[in-house]
Amino acid sequence: MTRFDEVKMVPIGIFNTDAVEIPRHWSISDVEGTLVIDQKYTDGLSGIEPGQKIVVLFHFHKSPAFDPSRHLRQIPPHRDRATGVFSICSPVRPNPIGMSVLTVLDVCKNRITVKGADMINDTPILDIKPHIDRKVKT
Amino acid sequence: MTRFDEVKMVPIGIFNTDAVEIPRHWSISDVEGTLVIDQKYTDGLSGIEPGQKIVVLFHFHKSPAFDPSRHLRQIPPHRDRATGVFSICSPVRPNPIGMSVLTVLDVCKNRITVKGADMINDTPILDIKPHIDRKVKT
Repeated sequence: MTRFDEVKMVPIGIFNTDAVEIPRHWSISDVEGTLVIDQKYTDGLSGIEPGQKIVVLFHFHKSPAFDPSRHLRQIPPHRDRATGVFSICSPVRPNPIGMSVLTVLDVCKNRITVKGADMINDTPILDIKPHIDRKVKT
Repeated sequence: MTRFDEVKMVPIGIFNTDAVEIPRHWSISDVEGTLVIDQKYTDGLSGIEPGQKIVVLFHFHKSPAFDPSRHLRQIPPHRDRATGVFSICSPVRPNPIGMSVLTVLDVCKNRITVKGADMINDTPILDIKPHIDRKVKT
Protein backbone atom coordinates (compact mmCIF):
# COMPACT_ATOMS: atom_id res chain seq x y z
CA MET A 1 0.00 0.00 0.00
CA THR A 2 1.09 3.53 -0.81
CA ARG A 3 2.51 5.48 2.15
CA PHE A 4 0.29 8.39 2.96
CA ASP A 5 1.05 12.01 3.56
CA GLU A 6 0.11 13.27 6.98
CA VAL A 7 -3.02 15.43 7.03
CA LYS A 8 -2.83 18.48 9.30
CA MET A 9 -5.85 20.24 10.71
CA VAL A 10 -6.46 23.18 13.00
CA PRO A 11 -9.66 23.23 15.11
CA ILE A 12 -12.26 25.83 14.10
CA GLY A 13 -13.58 26.23 17.63
CA ILE A 14 -14.32 24.58 20.93
CA PHE A 15 -17.28 22.96 22.72
CA ASN A 16 -18.26 24.31 26.11
CA THR A 17 -20.64 22.64 28.51
CA ASP A 18 -21.37 22.70 32.24
CA ALA A 19 -22.43 19.06 32.13
CA VAL A 20 -20.24 16.75 34.16
CA GLU A 21 -21.75 13.42 33.17
CA ILE A 22 -21.41 12.99 29.44
CA PRO A 23 -23.28 10.07 27.80
CA ARG A 24 -21.19 7.67 25.72
CA HIS A 25 -23.04 8.62 22.52
CA TRP A 26 -25.13 11.48 21.10
CA SER A 27 -28.00 9.07 20.35
CA ILE A 28 -28.69 8.78 24.09
CA SER A 29 -27.76 12.34 25.13
CA ASP A 30 -29.76 15.36 26.28
CA VAL A 31 -26.65 17.34 27.20
CA GLU A 32 -26.66 20.98 26.18
CA GLY A 33 -23.66 23.12 25.40
CA THR A 34 -22.23 25.75 23.08
CA LEU A 35 -20.02 25.47 20.02
CA VAL A 36 -17.83 28.57 20.24
CA ILE A 37 -16.41 29.03 16.75
CA ASP A 38 -13.37 31.15 15.93
CA GLN A 39 -14.72 34.61 15.03
CA LYS A 40 -12.92 34.57 11.69
CA TYR A 41 -15.36 31.82 10.63
CA THR A 42 -18.60 33.51 11.82
CA ASP A 43 -19.81 34.16 8.24
CA GLY A 44 -19.40 30.45 7.55
CA LEU A 45 -22.23 29.70 9.99
CA SER A 46 -24.90 31.47 7.92
CA GLY A 47 -27.69 29.07 7.02
CA ILE A 48 -27.52 27.19 10.33
CA GLU A 49 -30.91 27.66 12.02
CA PRO A 50 -32.52 26.65 15.34
CA GLY A 51 -34.31 23.31 15.09
CA GLN A 52 -31.91 21.92 12.49
CA LYS A 53 -29.69 18.95 13.07
CA ILE A 54 -26.01 19.38 12.30
CA VAL A 55 -23.10 16.98 12.06
CA VAL A 56 -20.16 18.00 14.22
CA LEU A 57 -16.71 16.49 13.73
CA PHE A 58 -14.38 16.89 16.69
CA HIS A 59 -11.02 15.84 18.07
CA PHE A 60 -10.97 13.14 20.78
CA HIS A 61 -8.23 15.21 22.39
CA LYS A 62 -8.15 13.29 25.67
CA SER A 63 -7.97 9.80 24.19
CA PRO A 64 -4.88 7.65 24.72
CA ALA A 65 -2.80 6.93 21.62
CA PHE A 66 -4.12 4.08 19.47
CA ASP A 67 -2.21 0.86 20.21
CA PRO A 68 -2.97 -1.82 17.57
CA SER A 69 -2.14 -4.65 19.99
CA ARG A 70 -4.92 -3.47 22.36
CA HIS A 71 -7.34 -1.36 20.35
CA LEU A 72 -7.96 -3.03 16.97
CA ARG A 73 -10.84 -4.90 18.60
CA GLN A 74 -12.58 -3.42 21.62
CA ILE A 75 -15.57 -4.30 23.81
CA PRO A 76 -18.00 -1.37 23.80
CA PRO A 77 -19.57 -0.54 27.20
CA HIS A 78 -23.04 -1.71 26.09
CA ARG A 79 -21.93 -5.03 24.54
CA ASP A 80 -20.18 -8.19 25.72
CA ARG A 81 -18.05 -9.04 22.73
CA ALA A 82 -14.94 -7.46 21.18
CA THR A 83 -15.52 -6.00 17.74
CA GLY A 84 -13.46 -4.05 15.21
CA VAL A 85 -12.72 -0.43 16.03
CA PHE A 86 -14.21 0.67 12.69
CA SER A 87 -17.62 -0.81 13.52
CA ILE A 88 -17.92 0.95 16.89
CA CYS A 89 -17.83 4.56 18.12
CA SER A 90 -14.89 4.20 20.54
CA PRO A 91 -12.86 7.38 21.14
CA VAL A 92 -9.67 5.30 20.85
CA ARG A 93 -9.16 4.95 17.09
CA PRO A 94 -6.31 5.38 14.57
CA ASN A 95 -7.43 8.92 13.72
CA PRO A 96 -9.16 10.32 16.83
CA ILE A 97 -12.07 12.03 15.06
CA GLY A 98 -15.45 11.98 16.75
CA MET A 99 -18.79 12.62 15.07
CA SER A 100 -22.03 13.75 16.67
CA VAL A 101 -25.44 14.66 15.30
CA LEU A 102 -26.67 17.58 17.39
CA THR A 103 -29.85 19.67 17.49
CA VAL A 104 -29.37 23.43 17.12
CA LEU A 105 -31.17 25.41 19.83
CA ASP A 106 -29.85 28.87 18.99
CA VAL A 107 -27.29 30.67 16.84
CA CYS A 108 -25.82 34.03 17.90
CA LYS A 109 -22.83 35.41 16.00
CA ASN A 110 -20.05 32.80 16.43
CA ARG A 111 -21.88 30.69 19.04
CA ILE A 112 -24.20 27.76 18.38
CA THR A 113 -26.16 26.39 21.33
CA VAL A 114 -26.81 22.69 20.83
CA LYS A 115 -28.53 19.75 22.51
CA GLY A 116 -27.65 16.05 22.46
CA ALA A 117 -23.90 16.31 22.90
CA ASP A 118 -21.46 13.54 23.81
CA MET A 119 -18.38 15.77 23.90
CA ILE A 120 -16.64 16.82 27.09
CA ASN A 121 -16.02 20.46 27.97
CA ASP A 122 -13.23 22.09 25.90
CA THR A 123 -13.41 19.56 23.05
CA PRO A 124 -11.80 21.02 19.89
CA ILE A 125 -14.21 21.21 16.92
CA LEU A 126 -12.89 20.31 13.45
CA ASP A 127 -15.90 20.79 11.18
CA ILE A 128 -19.65 21.35 11.03
CA LYS A 129 -21.76 19.90 8.21
CA PRO A 130 -25.45 19.76 7.36
CA HIS A 131 -27.18 16.57 8.50
CA ILE A 132 -28.49 14.59 5.53
CA ASP A 133 -29.99 11.31 6.61
CA ARG A 134 -31.18 9.60 3.49
CA LYS A 135 -30.61 9.01 -0.15
CA VAL A 136 -32.47 11.11 -2.65
CA LYS A 137 -31.92 8.34 -5.19
CA THR A 138 -30.96 4.73 -4.38
CA MET B 1 -10.33 32.41 21.76
CA THR B 2 -7.67 29.90 22.77
CA ARG B 3 -5.14 29.08 20.06
CA PHE B 4 -5.44 25.47 19.05
CA ASP B 5 -2.86 22.78 18.66
CA GLU B 6 -2.62 21.32 15.19
CA VAL B 7 -4.18 17.87 14.86
CA LYS B 8 -2.19 15.42 12.73
CA MET B 9 -3.71 12.40 11.04
CA VAL B 10 -2.45 9.64 8.80
CA PRO B 11 -4.91 8.04 6.34
CA ILE B 12 -5.92 4.44 7.12
CA GLY B 13 -6.42 3.53 3.47
CA ILE B 14 -7.54 4.66 0.06
CA PHE B 15 -10.68 4.60 -2.09
CA ASN B 16 -10.44 3.04 -5.53
CA THR B 17 -13.05 3.35 -8.26
CA ASP B 18 -13.21 3.02 -12.04
CA ALA B 19 -15.99 5.61 -12.15
CA VAL B 20 -15.09 8.76 -14.00
CA GLU B 21 -18.18 10.82 -13.30
CA ILE B 22 -18.54 11.25 -9.55
CA PRO B 23 -21.80 12.75 -8.24
CA ARG B 24 -21.50 15.82 -6.03
CA HIS B 25 -22.96 13.95 -3.02
CA TRP B 26 -23.44 10.40 -1.76
CA SER B 27 -27.19 10.97 -1.41
CA ILE B 28 -27.51 10.98 -5.22
CA SER B 29 -24.77 8.44 -6.03
CA ASP B 30 -24.82 4.85 -7.30
CA VAL B 31 -21.04 4.77 -7.79
CA GLU B 32 -19.29 1.60 -6.66
CA GLY B 33 -15.72 1.27 -5.49
CA THR B 34 -13.43 -0.31 -2.93
CA LEU B 35 -12.05 0.96 0.35
CA VAL B 36 -8.56 -0.58 0.48
CA ILE B 37 -7.51 -0.34 4.12
CA ASP B 38 -3.93 -0.65 5.36
CA GLN B 39 -3.42 -4.34 6.18
CA LYS B 40 -2.30 -3.49 9.71
CA TYR B 41 -5.90 -2.40 10.40
CA THR B 42 -7.66 -5.48 8.91
CA ASP B 43 -8.76 -6.76 12.34
CA GLY B 44 -10.40 -3.39 12.98
CA LEU B 45 -12.91 -4.11 10.19
CA SER B 46 -14.51 -7.06 12.00
CA GLY B 47 -18.22 -6.46 12.51
CA ILE B 48 -18.66 -4.65 9.18
CA GLU B 49 -21.12 -6.74 7.13
CA PRO B 50 -22.63 -6.59 3.63
CA GLY B 51 -25.90 -4.65 3.57
CA GLN B 52 -24.86 -2.30 6.38
CA LYS B 53 -24.41 1.41 5.95
CA ILE B 54 -21.15 2.90 7.14
CA VAL B 55 -19.92 6.45 7.63
CA VAL B 56 -16.64 7.13 5.85
CA LEU B 57 -14.53 10.17 6.69
CA PHE B 58 -12.01 11.11 4.02
CA HIS B 59 -9.53 13.78 3.01
CA PHE B 60 -10.55 16.19 0.23
CA HIS B 61 -6.97 15.87 -0.99
CA LYS B 62 -7.51 17.67 -4.31
CA SER B 63 -9.32 20.71 -2.92
CA PRO B 64 -7.74 24.15 -3.16
CA ALA B 65 -6.69 25.73 0.11
CA PHE B 66 -9.50 27.45 2.02
CA ASP B 67 -9.45 31.21 1.39
CA PRO B 68 -11.74 33.05 3.86
CA SER B 69 -12.22 35.97 1.46
CA ARG B 70 -13.71 33.62 -1.17
CA HIS B 71 -14.94 30.51 0.62
CA LEU B 72 -16.70 31.51 3.86
CA ARG B 73 -19.92 31.69 1.85
CA GLN B 74 -20.31 29.63 -1.30
CA ILE B 75 -23.05 28.94 -3.85
CA PRO B 76 -23.63 25.17 -4.01
CA PRO B 77 -24.16 23.75 -7.54
CA HIS B 78 -27.82 22.95 -6.87
CA ARG B 79 -28.74 26.31 -5.30
CA ASP B 80 -28.75 29.95 -6.39
CA ARG B 81 -27.69 31.69 -3.19
CA ALA B 82 -24.44 31.87 -1.25
CA THR B 83 -24.57 30.20 2.14
CA GLY B 84 -22.09 29.52 4.95
CA VAL B 85 -19.53 26.80 4.33
CA PHE B 86 -20.61 24.99 7.52
CA SER B 87 -24.18 24.57 6.26
CA ILE B 88 -23.16 23.01 2.93
CA CYS B 89 -21.09 20.00 1.83
CA SER B 90 -18.49 21.88 -0.24
CA PRO B 91 -15.08 20.20 -0.52
CA VAL B 92 -13.45 23.60 0.06
CA ARG B 93 -13.62 24.06 3.85
CA PRO B 94 -11.25 25.06 6.68
CA ASN B 95 -10.50 21.42 7.51
CA PRO B 96 -10.90 19.43 4.28
CA ILE B 97 -12.70 16.41 5.76
CA GLY B 98 -15.42 14.78 3.68
CA MET B 99 -18.14 12.48 5.00
CA SER B 100 -20.14 9.90 3.07
CA VAL B 101 -22.74 7.33 4.08
CA LEU B 102 -22.05 4.25 1.95
CA THR B 103 -23.68 0.84 1.57
CA VAL B 104 -21.38 -2.14 2.11
CA LEU B 105 -21.60 -4.67 -0.74
CA ASP B 106 -18.80 -7.00 0.36
CA VAL B 107 -15.94 -7.32 2.84
CA CYS B 108 -12.86 -9.41 2.06
CA LYS B 109 -9.82 -9.12 4.33
CA ASN B 110 -8.74 -5.47 4.14
CA ARG B 111 -11.07 -4.51 1.27
CA ILE B 112 -14.62 -3.19 1.57
CA THR B 113 -16.66 -2.92 -1.63
CA VAL B 114 -19.17 -0.09 -1.33
CA LYS B 115 -21.94 1.62 -3.27
CA GLY B 116 -23.09 5.22 -3.25
CA ALA B 117 -19.71 6.93 -3.26
CA ASP B 118 -18.94 10.58 -3.97
CA MET B 119 -15.16 10.25 -3.62
CA ILE B 120 -12.77 10.34 -6.57
CA ASN B 121 -10.28 7.55 -7.24
CA ASP B 122 -7.31 7.52 -4.83
CA THR B 123 -9.08 9.51 -2.10
CA PRO B 124 -7.32 8.99 1.28
CA ILE B 125 -9.61 7.49 3.95
CA LEU B 126 -9.35 8.84 7.52
CA ASP B 127 -11.93 6.81 9.46
CA ILE B 128 -14.86 4.40 9.19
CA LYS B 129 -17.72 4.50 11.71
CA PRO B 130 -21.04 2.70 12.12
CA HIS B 131 -24.01 4.59 10.69
CA ILE B 132 -26.48 5.53 13.43
CA ASP B 133 -29.31 7.61 12.08
CA ARG B 134 -31.54 8.36 15.00
CA LYS B 135 -31.76 9.07 18.65
CA VAL B 136 -32.58 6.22 21.00
CA LYS B 137 -33.79 8.81 23.47
CA THR B 138 -34.76 12.40 22.67
